[in-house]
Amino acid sequence: MADPALDGLVEALRCLPGVGQKSAQRMAYHLLQHDRAGALKLARALDGAVNEIGHCARCHTFSRAELCDLCADSTRDARLLCVVETPADQAALERTGSYKGQYFVLLGRLSPLDGLGARDIGLSALLTRASDGVVEEVILATNFNAEGEATAHVLGEQLKARGLKVTRLARGVPVGSELEYVDLGTIAHAFMDRR
Amino acid sequence: MADPALDGLVEALRCLPGVGQKSAQRMAYHLLQHDRAGALKLARALDGAVNEIGHCARCHTFSRAELCDLCADSTRDARLLCVVETPADQAALERTGSYKGQYFVLLGRLSPLDGLGARDIGLSALLTRASDGVVEEVILATNFNAEGEATAHVLGEQLKARGLKVTRLARGVPVGSELEYVDLGTIAHAFMDRR
Repeated sequence: MADPALDGLVEALRCLPGVGQKSAQRMAYHLLQHDRAGALKLARALDGAVNEIGHCARCHTFSRAELCDLCADSTRDARLLCVVETPADQAALERTGSYKGQYFVLLGRLSPLDGLGARDIGLSALLTRASDGVVEEVILATNFNAEGEATAHVLGEQLKARGLKVTRLARGVPVGSELEYVDLGTIAHAFMDRR
Repeated sequence: MADPALDGLVEALRCLPGVGQKSAQRMAYHLLQHDRAGALKLARALDGAVNEIGHCARCHTFSRAELCDLCADSTRDARLLCVVETPADQAALERTGSYKGQYFVLLGRLSPLDGLGARDIGLSALLTRASDGVVEEVILATNFNAEGEATAHVLGEQLKARGLKVTRLARGVPVGSELEYVDLGTIAHAFMDRR
């Protein structure tokens, strides 16, 4: 009863993270029924992105050129290397305007449950990059959830073993917040790291 | 800093139902980082499905041919018309083997919050189909959640106004269940519809 092209679309949609059989079916029905133009646009966007976007040779982020704009910028401080999980995290840090060093983008995090190990986050590439003789301090700016902390721990151990200074973004009470509403773990950290 | 092809992919992924900015970004990163083959396969599947699959002229379900297999099957009882929300619901009913009539597939449900009105579920096409002079009974088999019930109500009113016999799948205690664990609304309905 089902059409092979429809089944194929449902199956192909399951390559998206967090999309199972039911969601994929719902998405396929929605596209065919309500948004065929969107489906064709998505097909073009997938082709375009896969064919045009590669990785920056230095920081691993998505880039068309051999070096991304930020790595090619000679005004950035090459002694500082900030490690982030995704380009979105990098963009958030850049928006603060408070960091003038360079970046390394893991494009992932250690997540054994999802089958993501040290190889998937480019650990050896990071170690090579950080050991270029110019980098003096590696700032670990992975997320402050369980997986991000675990990633920071593993990366920190390996980087320290190579004699590099390793720091982590400060944990503490968010700016503008009232203590009454801040979670206990955050306050406990703010006590420990008081200055 | 961001690449237009990457931004375009994130934007295009948002045409999928239930996918917002954050999920789309996560999907785009995942595809480019871990599953480029999957992304290309998805692009092909989208093209294939959009170009090859149309709608059955009688029951509105997805079909390559003018008439879907089921509508073209002359052994089905043309006096019975069963209205379902999706081809998946239709498949579930067919698997029971207990229905030998024909179908009309809404490919949706009334859902004002999502901007889906009577036109989006093909109400006028259903009324035309049901008024062919052969159909005697329309069985409403939309889902038994709020939106499905509302859809059944609206369709039922319109079909009854055209002098058709309108029925709804029976509500009651699921086969194999123990009363202690059945929700109260279901038991209340089972009392009302006792036979």
